[in-house]
Amino acid sequence: MTQPTRRDLANAIRFLAADAVEAAKSGHPGMPMGMADIAEVLWNDYLSHNPNNPKWFNRDRFVLSNGHGSMLQYALLHLSGYDLPIEELKNFRQLGHRTPGHPENFVTPGVETTTGPLGQGFANAVGFALAEKLLAQRFNRPEFAIVDHRTWVFLGDGCLMEGISHEAASLAGTLKLGKLVAFWDDNGISIDGEVQGWFTDDTPKRFEAYGWRVIRDVDGHDADAIKAAIEDSLSQDERPTLVCCRTTIGFGSPAKAGKESSHGAPLGGDELAATRKALGWEHGPFELPAAIQDGWRAGNAGLVREEQWNRLFDAYAQKYPDIATELSRRSHGELPEEFAAAAEAYIRKLQAEGPEVASRKASQMAIEAFAPHLPELVGGSADLASSNLTMWSGSKDAAGDDPSANYIYYGVREFAMTAISNGLALHGGFIPYDATFLVFSDYARNAVRMSALMEAHAIHVYTHDSIGLGEDGPTHQPVEHLASLRLIPNNDVWRPCDAVESAVAWRAAIERRDGPSCLVFSRQNLPHQSRDDAQLAAIARGGYVLAEAGNGAPEIVLIATGSEVGLAVEARAMLEAEGIATRVVSMPSSDVFDRQDAEYREAVLPSALRRRVAVEAGVTDAWRKYVGLDGAVVGLDRFGASAPAGVLFKHFGFTAQAVADAARALR
Amino acid sequence: MTQPTRRDLANAIRFLAADAVEAAKSGHPGMPMGMADIAEVLWNDYLSHNPNNPKWFNRDRFVLSNGHGSMLQYALLHLSGYDLPIEELKNFRQLGHRTPGHPENFVTPGVETTTGPLGQGFANAVGFALAEKLLAQRFNRPEFAIVDHRTWVFLGDGCLMEGISHEAASLAGTLKLGKLVAFWDDNGISIDGEVQGWFTDDTPKRFEAYGWRVIRDVDGHDADAIKAAIEDSLSQDERPTLVCCRTTIGFGSPAKAGKESSHGAPLGGDELAATRKALGWEHGPFELPAAIQDGWRAGNAGLVREEQWNRLFDAYAQKYPDIATELSRRSHGELPEEFAAAAEAYIRKLQAEGPEVASRKASQMAIEAFAPHLPELVGGSADLASSNLTMWSGSKDAAGDDPSANYIYYGVREFAMTAISNGLALHGGFIPYDATFLVFSDYARNAVRMSALMEAHAIHVYTHDSIGLGEDGPTHQPVEHLASLRLIPNNDVWRPCDAVESAVAWRAAIERRDGPSCLVFSRQNLPHQSRDDAQLAAIARGGYVLAEAGNGAPEIVLIATGSEVGLAVEARAMLEAEGIATRVVSMPSSDVFDRQDAEYREAVLPSALRRRVAVEAGVTDAWRKYVGLDGAVVGLDRFGASAPAGVLFKHFGFTAQAVADAARALR
Repeated sequence: MTQPTRRDLANAIRFLAADAVEAAKSGHPGMPMGMADIAEVLWNDYLSHNPNNPKWFNRDRFVLSNGHGSMLQYALLHLSGYDLPIEELKNFRQLGHRTPGHPENFVTPGVETTTGPLGQGFANAVGFALAEKLLAQRFNRPEFAIVDHRTWVFLGDGCLMEGISHEAASLAGTLKLGKLVAFWDDNGISIDGEVQGWFTDDTPKRFEAYGWRVIRDVDGHDADAIKAAIEDSLSQDERPTLVCCRTTIGFGSPAKAGKESSHGAPLGGDELAATRKALGWEHGPFELPAAIQDGWRAGNAGLVREEQWNRLFDAYAQKYPDIATELSRRSHGELPEEFAAAAEAYIRKLQAEGPEVASRKASQMAIEAFAPHLPELVGGSADLASSNLTMWSGSKDAAGDDPSANYIYYGVREFAMTAISNGLALHGGFIPYDATFLVFSDYARNAVRMSALMEAHAIHVYTHDSIGLGEDGPTHQPVEHLASLRLIPNNDVWRPCDAVESAVAWRAAIERRDGPSCLVFSRQNLPHQSRDDAQLAAIARGGYVLAEAGNGAPEIVLIATGSEVGLAVEARAMLEAEGIATRVVSMPSSDVFDRQDAEYREAVLPSALRRRVAVEAGVTDAWRKYVGLDGAVVGLDRFGASAPAGVLFKHFGFTAQAVADAARALR
Repeated sequence: MTQPTRRDLANAIRFLAADAVEAAKSGHPGMPMGMADIAEVLWNDYLSHNPNNPKWFNRDRFVLSNGHGSMLQYALLHLSGYDLPIEELKNFRQLGHRTPGHPENFVTPGVETTTGPLGQGFANAVGFALAEKLLAQRFNRPEFAIVDHRTWVFLGDGCLMEGISHEAASLAGTLKLGKLVAFWDDNGISIDGEVQGWFTDDTPKRFEAYGWRVIRDVDGHDADAIKAAIEDSLSQDERPTLVCCRTTIGFGSPAKAGKESSHGAPLGGDELAATRKALGWEHGPFELPAAIQDGWRAGNAGLVREEQWNRLFDAYAQKYPDIATELSRRSHGELPEEFAAAAEAYIRKLQAEGPEVASRKASQMAIEAFAPHLPELVGGSADLASSNLTMWSGSKDAAGDDPSANYIYYGVREFAMTAISNGLALHGGFIPYDATFLVFSDYARNAVRMSALMEAHAIHVYTHDSIGLGEDGPTHQPVEHLASLRLIPNNDVWRPCDAVESAVAWRAAIERRDGPSCLVFSRQNLPHQSRDDAQLAAIARGGYVLAEAGNGAPEIVLIATGSEVGLAVEARAMLEAEGIATRVVSMPSSDVFDRQDAEYREAVLPSALRRRVAVEAGVTDAWRKYVGLDGAVVGLDRFGASAPAGVLFKHFGFTAQAVADAARALR
């Protein structure tokens, strides 16, 4: 082969993808074959990255929101010189390899975010672009564009049909994320067939309505047209860009191109052979001629690029040492040295002072105490700032160009908000928090799951955590949500019982680096609980003995969380007065408690102590893991009702008397 | 008072709302005060309903998607003569009254759907309009427009920011739901303040992009302008209509009109007095002069309207007795007489034949067997028809005008799909089913919750129910979803172990009238299980003894669902061979099992039999309610991985050997 054409370079993607799917007997060849030409132009001519260091901080971010086309990304990473050998591509979708069915950021170097659940990659990309904007505002100085990269995202019809695409695109337009460029794979096909039967939006017009710049009618198989569109997208503009690319799914396959049959299944041996012939690709599966490899390798350019940036950064660090240190610290995800001591001092002060406030208020107090130490803390709420209490005295609107901008008015967009948090966390430089009512965690649920799967350091704040929200009624009263969030692997759920536990939960969420935390707070005031130093320290273990039996030998243990801890403490007093030795365990985070060593767990909940009562204003089933078949749960296995909170707690049996009754019944 | 003006009539709404919120010390006066003029024109001049019979089948449907403005709806119902006395309005948001914080269809006559979770009411309304279109196609005849009503929906900025508004509006445009009219309360305010900081969409342009007819720039406080817009919306057109109404939130309040302070809190006594003065309302709280009452009462017109329709229906029934009978049956939510016998025969045939198929295939077979008896069964999938296997031989695209149209290509819109199902169910005349992968039930989660809260007879089909889906990997592999769906009160989750249980689950879902069912099916083939007649009958009880210990005196019980039942049966054989008496309980629906009487539950899981092992390819915690602290759970408390299904089951310890080991370890 002489000098390969652009089409030859793109065909390398096509056949790596189709051959890998064929080998796996599973996967999606159609999208990589359809978007190969776009990807080739973008990656070879525009993407600013360093395959030798996938974590170079100022790299462009590339997101494959239509993640089922994962082989496109693996082919690009391999061809560009990332640490993804051909053996990994040959083992596409096999256990223990770095080429899973959908791209996973925690598995494959060069994959920025985990995609597949449609639309979320696009929202993650909005988070990446927002991170870049906010960091640039804070850190760039004249002649030092230290943070200066683009975010490129591929998306398909599926992403565009999903509601989250509306939320994310609308907010990106409002926030003027001009360095975000999305390529729409307009191939007219989704799994059920030709989309005209179920997707008739005028998408360009829709995106213009969001304040986007729309580049229409680009031939997605014409490298010159693609190049012209990308050049266009580079021009100075505050609007994000949508490039509308007409493509053919399964491009090159004589029988399956343009058809849904190329979408989600191997082409089949005969059709793959016919495709080789049609595209003039004379190489066997996973064979890449040297000329093709040479046409792709981006390693050296990447090294040069990063070296240039490193030199720029060194000069910047000399001129602006403080902010350079801050950027360096934040880009490595390290907390400021003083944080631990400041947090500890604040928590001790709270324990001594004992404020009796709603835990949502305690949450705001914790933010107010911690945020001045943490410029990386960037927050927001889905149009409930005054209810979630997510703003602090230093909050500055992210929509403006304030260098310390750190607050996002997300609007009523819970799903995109959470996926944008994930993008902010994965970009680096930020610890994002978001907020809504606990019941509306439902709207964002898969993004919370993705936080956990992706090991994203994101904090999800949920207030109004039970029937205690009162009059808004059952549509707004969570009953199953605490239990349901606890089920998500690698997700730490906290439901603190007072201001002290609230601050400890915030500290834990800030210090946790390998996954999300859900911080769940009450609408109503909660009593302060007294603790000695050991108890104060034990909060961080997720569950601890808050009140020991008077005689030190409990025959009953009451386990409670949040607003029900106060009830348990009251019930204990009643029981002890009757001579029933009663321990109270506060369990702000069962997820964290379950990770403690067996000895600690045994000390808190001794195996022999089987008279156990769990108390939580929510569904009961999951509490059986602590109380077993012989214990009792005071909970709520039905929807709530609209009435003042005090009336509801009494109506549904959340009283100290009822808790004491449940304990007595076990004797 | 002489003849009241339109403004006077609207002011009656304003003060009922503001006074009720004041009395409750809680609620949202701003929206009712802002939309009162629109509501007055719509309800007095256009809404076709009968306050004496809120269930009249051909009534217009009215939906308050911005449900926090519930007092608007209660005021309208009271003023129009529904059975909602003034005492109920005085007890707004109090326990045991019919005026909860957000409108609840199962509490208040005249409320069509439960709203509050933003955007969902709008999607429910799309379901209502779709129901009307499909019923009209099937039942109307020349000169007999038996089904002929409009669906009117009020919505606010919050609804429009939510992603579900995109999904629902897009589909409504595609499906050409020309009798759907939405009124946008364009007041420029949401909870966080003036929306221009976070909501800058060109909404009219956006809706035009969906194929809607948009009526712009309507003064929402000018009755003539409102009337002209509604007249416009009535003209023959296949496009749904968005009426853009500029309004002032809290209209009439001197200090709070146009401000977020009027949104979600009482105006306060002084401000309420000032508002009375400003609007010239001289009546005390809850006082309605006779002239105002006379101006509102719609009872007589409603009676006449329904009588006319009844006469039309009688003539129709004479001319077309068969379809009249069908419509009457379906509108009352009754199943055809032959269904029970046909279902029973099909289930018995399956038990005898024992097909070994994936349960998703078994689901399709059940649809194929049952649907010919059930013209009310209307289904669809979120772009996964060939994976969810939701189509049967009689499926006809709902986008067309086929009289037997019964299949909706929902596109990739899980949340709107589910909320549209709720609308179809609440409209009457249909039993809707929808479908996606189990993991993407997350995207629709709050709509599933709303199905359950609203007691909607909807069926949610979820396939690819575990790591058994294989190569697509952890983004697509549910692990917490079964447990999580089971937590929703009044939601029946089924996970059948073979074709027989699959058919029984479908029958149960069809026969259940007071709530939703989630039917969860495997991607992979499952073995057939043998059963005697008693066992076959017991499937419907949710859990039953599938295989008794050889000696009739089990010392171990294995409890399993779905694809793990086969493993349990294999493990039992191993254990019995070693002389360990082992019972297997198949538990396709723990929700249904938990509703059985104590005696039955004790027979299946005797209290004294504590050596219990639960087996399910998902998170383990909830199974402790059956196995307690002393039993074992073979499950998966982490995310899955991308690999072939067989490899994964082995890798994660789902083998008969592992189940047997867990049982042995209990001895």
